[in-house]
Amino acid sequence: MPYVNIKITREGATTEQKAALIKGATQLLVDVLGKNPATTVVVIDEVDTDNWGIGGETVTLRRKNGK
Amino acid sequence: MPYVNIKITREGATTEQKAALIKGATQLLVDVLGKNPATTVVVIDEVDTDNWGIGGETVTLRRKNGK
Amino acid sequence: MPYVNIKITREGATTEQKAALIKGATQLLVDVLGKNPATTVVVIDEVDTDNWGIGGETVTLRRKNGK
Amino acid sequence: MPYVNIKITREGATTEQKAALIKGATQLLVDVLGKNPATTVVVIDEVDTDNWGIGGETVTLRRKNGK
Amino acid sequence: MPYVNIKITREGATTEQKAALIKGATQLLVDVLGKNPATTVVVIDEVDTDNWGIGGETVTLRRKNGK
Amino acid sequence: MPYVNIKITREGATTEQKAALIKGATQLLVDVLGKNPATTVVVIDEVDTDNWGIGGETVTLRRKNGK
Repeated sequence: MPYVNIKITREGATTEQKAALIKGATQLLVDVLGKNPATTVVVIDEVDTDNWGIGGETVTLRRKNGK
Repeated sequence: MPYVNIKITREGATTEQKAALIKGATQLLVDVLGKNPATTVVVIDEVDTDNWGIGGETVTLRRKNGK
Repeated sequence: MPYVNIKITREGATTEQKAALIKGATQLLVDVLGKNPATTVVVIDEVDTDNWGIGGETVTLRRKNGK
Repeated sequence: MPYVNIKITREGATTEQKAALIKGATQLLVDVLGKNPATTVVVIDEVDTDNWGIGGETVTLRRKNGK
Repeated sequence: MPYVNIKITREGATTEQKAALIKGATQLLVDVLGKNPATTVVVIDEVDTDNWGIGGETVTLRRKNGK
Repeated sequence: MPYVNIKITREGATTEQKAALIKGATQLLVDVLGKNPATTVVVIDEVDTDNWGIGGETVTLRRKNGK
């Protein structure tokens, strides 16, 4: 019954990579807490780099500056 | 003053259906808890089927397999 | 498969009222979008009035001022 | 280490305005709680006006009615 | 820089289990997307069984009925 | 109409500090985007240090190790 939300920047994650995140997060809840995978929900949000900030600046700017 | 967030897969919900979700969720808070509808906020997130998983697999794959 | 999150201030909602919110939100998704109730998840967060603000002030303060 | 999520309607916020929200929210956590800006994350979600409701109706409808 | 939120029912997860969820979710983002673990944030919310619903009923009630 | 969610570790933020976060976040939306403060909602979540991870470990452990 757990719910997992994964937020990442939108920088080209493939369908296969997103499927791997969903599979892995579900398995983690099974392994650690014995949760039922059938009712475990995983939602991935991909966020534009203009809309994600860390250290007070956008990821767009950080990428430009080689961070 | 309540805040309601409804996450659904992006599979063609119409403007009318989304308006009905907003109206219904707001009314629910009024009916059950006597909340003020004027400050009740409802936000609907539509999530790509590649980004939503249940049972460890994406909804895209489940739809293909007729689930 | 929808996921609904309802945030309300912690001001004495009863177990019965919370059960009614869960039942009503699930039914809303069934009625409007034909979703499967068996995999519809509803999570209620009750938030202290010190931690909820509207109009730039806490709900605690608003309650004191009769708002 | 704080995490801030800002949800606004998608109504033309510019890259500069979003950068200002990120900078301002980060600074707020530094000023009020002495948090480390380097690990403060801010995520902005822009939501279609069809998907945002207040007072039981969508923002799209409210804009049409001059609210 | 990813942000992961794991919501589970409050049913006795230990400090060790929660540390394992944090470690595992962080490693998943490293393995699948090559993300930097140093800025990967994981937040676990434990939700009372009265406040979590699935299938239109609370988990409290489901537990009583042996589900 | 914006909605702001601030998540911080539960480490003794005072009522006054939380009121300052609410006031500051609301003002930020007014200053940057001209939003109406009367319908701007701010919700603060305080999260136990056992339930917050960064760099793959809990904040509890990081505090013990002087980080």
